[in-house]
Amino acid sequence: MEAYLDNSATTRVFESVKDIVVKTMTEDFGNPSSLHKKGVEAEHYVKEAAALVAGTLKADPSEIIFTSGGTESNNMAIIGAFRANSRLGNHIITSTIEHPSVYNVFDYLEKEGAQAEYIPVDKNGHIDQDALLAAVNEKTVLVSVMYVNNEIGSVNPIGEIGAAIKKKNLGTLFHVDAIQAYGKYRINPKREQIDLLSVSGHKIHGPKGIGFLYVKKGTKLSPVMFGGGQQKGMRSGTHNVPGIAGMGEAAREIYAGHEEKRKAMYRLKGLFVELVGKLPGTKINGLTGEDSAPHVISVSFEGIRSEVLLHALEEKGIYVSSGSACSSNHPALIGTLKGIGVKRELLDSTLRFSLSIFTTEEEIRYSAEVLGELLPALRRYTRK
Amino acid sequence: MEAYLDNSATTRVFESVKDIVVKTMTEDFGNPSSLHKKGVEAEHYVKEAAALVAGTLKADPSEIIFTSGGTESNNMAIIGAFRANSRLGNHIITSTIEHPSVYNVFDYLEKEGAQAEYIPVDKNGHIDQDALLAAVNEKTVLVSVMYVNNEIGSVNPIGEIGAAIKKKNLGTLFHVDAIQAYGKYRINPKREQIDLLSVSGHKIHGPKGIGFLYVKKGTKLSPVMFGGGQQKGMRSGTHNVPGIAGMGEAAREIYAGHEEKRKAMYRLKGLFVELVGKLPGTKINGLTGEDSAPHVISVSFEGIRSEVLLHALEEKGIYVSSGSACSSNHPALIGTLKGIGVKRELLDSTLRFSLSIFTTEEEIRYSAEVLGELLPALRRYTRK
Repeated sequence: MEAYLDNSATTRVFESVKDIVVKTMTEDFGNPSSLHKKGVEAEHYVKEAAALVAGTLKADPSEIIFTSGGTESNNMAIIGAFRANSRLGNHIITSTIEHPSVYNVFDYLEKEGAQAEYIPVDKNGHIDQDALLAAVNEKTVLVSVMYVNNEIGSVNPIGEIGAAIKKKNLGTLFHVDAIQAYGKYRINPKREQIDLLSVSGHKIHGPKGIGFLYVKKGTKLSPVMFGGGQQKGMRSGTHNVPGIAGMGEAAREIYAGHEEKRKAMYRLKGLFVELVGKLPGTKINGLTGEDSAPHVISVSFEGIRSEVLLHALEEKGIYVSSGSACSSNHPALIGTLKGIGVKRELLDSTLRFSLSIFTTEEEIRYSAEVLGELLPALRRYTRK
Repeated sequence: MEAYLDNSATTRVFESVKDIVVKTMTEDFGNPSSLHKKGVEAEHYVKEAAALVAGTLKADPSEIIFTSGGTESNNMAIIGAFRANSRLGNHIITSTIEHPSVYNVFDYLEKEGAQAEYIPVDKNGHIDQDALLAAVNEKTVLVSVMYVNNEIGSVNPIGEIGAAIKKKNLGTLFHVDAIQAYGKYRINPKREQIDLLSVSGHKIHGPKGIGFLYVKKGTKLSPVMFGGGQQKGMRSGTHNVPGIAGMGEAAREIYAGHEEKRKAMYRLKGLFVELVGKLPGTKINGLTGEDSAPHVISVSFEGIRSEVLLHALEEKGIYVSSGSACSSNHPALIGTLKGIGVKRELLDSTLRFSLSIFTTEEEIRYSAEVLGELLPALRRYTRK
């Protein structure tokens, strides 16, 4: 028996995604920049994908820029907005528990003259809104806040935050890293006052190496990659047609019957929390149920090193992640687990279990059962 | 009958590339950053691809950084080298007939304080070596020269150029855009004194959205994308495992029996030049035979607009490119055709025919035959 519970790291692609990737690699393999039929055909896939993706956000296809993935989307959004709006100011704000593809960009921009500010979160992983609003001033070019945290599944009230930022400074751009949220939530950038939104393909059963950045019409953004002027000059390079077509198809598929998919994930997450939560010496981090994302569960296991447990689970065919360490030396950046106040002795005893719409009840029950057997055994071993 | 003669724009993937892409999307779909078996498995594909690619260059796998394609490779090489070596100077050099993903990066760096210099080419599209060497000085951080020109297939004597640059200033980095050369030539960066070499997957029957940058051991290069620290921090972002595995497989396949593949392409190119060259009012641009690349033929057609001919050919199932216009307003950048002295009245009458190892004699004969029929007909039409 296998249980792949590492879907926040990456997912298996949809069958229909595989099919469209194969078709555009072998049959309709043209370059959209070519003027002939094969180019027009390829361009059609790109337009179709942009329309599909935009549709899920109630946005316009012209607001979608395809990138090589979530990391590039975050880089492009933050660096591009900072550069394009330098006349407004040099102040940029984010939280202390962002993904490295956000905080390491902030770190880089500090070296380029940005004044960066890092807002703490509460014990549930929600950004401190009072502190955020106190920080926004007339020089604030950009605020970047993640929608769903990748380690504990906390969900920020993005609409509230967007409205509050704009009330304080209408010119401040609001960037949302939605890499763990897209496909799990119905996101409406206009309603939530989001100017820039980053999405990755491979977190929603789309291909790796593809993602997109939603850029609200009229938003000033400088390109960060230069070349043949594709995508209106915003992102040069031959269109990755198979990736783009696969991204569009994944978006279509993940949002088809979306409410049922969400419900099924919440049910399985609830079951996991119930079964694992009652094992002795376990602690679920952050909120549970619908107060957090449908697919991420962070659990600390008293007296057991996460790496040991990770490999013990692996031997039983259960694949999970350890609570990731923060890769920055920046004093303000302490990582999600520390950021929400997980006790020091539990920091290295925490695993992330992450589900997808492919996850089955059988996998959940099997994992909980194996944990029930492993935990006492490993604790005995550790104490020796 | 169809004849796809636009292989310098993009190519159909190898069957074996399709297979490995499918396998890594659907079965071995893990994230190399994951610590468990599925991560290790995925990492294995990445290592294997790096070894395959490095092998074709007689390089070490640690010298390969995978990117999202040729454009990113060129951007990373030029921007990364400029930033990392600013203490050496701010002088950068390239030719007047580079690809936009080189000259538009130069243009960008000029705004960031670089002193950029553009060296002309001769009528065969070879960079003026005397002018290049006169330009290299103690402040020259980087020289970027393309291996094979994408519009006319001219081939620079890269080894000579590398040696001459290093003789003038050992500290000057030599970047080679090999996007049209890789897979057509056996490139040996060490022997040719190349420090940075850009390659794209989809030009050699690999996937779109993937490429790599060869970075000679010890070369100072700043990353241009920030995040989770993948690829030793040089290029963050979840590894595009299917793309990377496909790139490796394409590299292996294109260099298997390489001499025969080259010979076959040269034979077909020779046949095309022979058949089309004798049609009245045609002019082959640049050198032919083994003095130019095996896959690119630029032909000017007197009295016919390239776009008209392109679409007339398209109706007969023949797919080609028009001689591309230069996308820069920079006064030094005039485009390849102007750069080699193509007469003004022929600039808009030029097409590029580009072959691949999939090209057949039948396609070549058919294309020449159709051209023979179309040219007089179109000229009559134009004169009316």
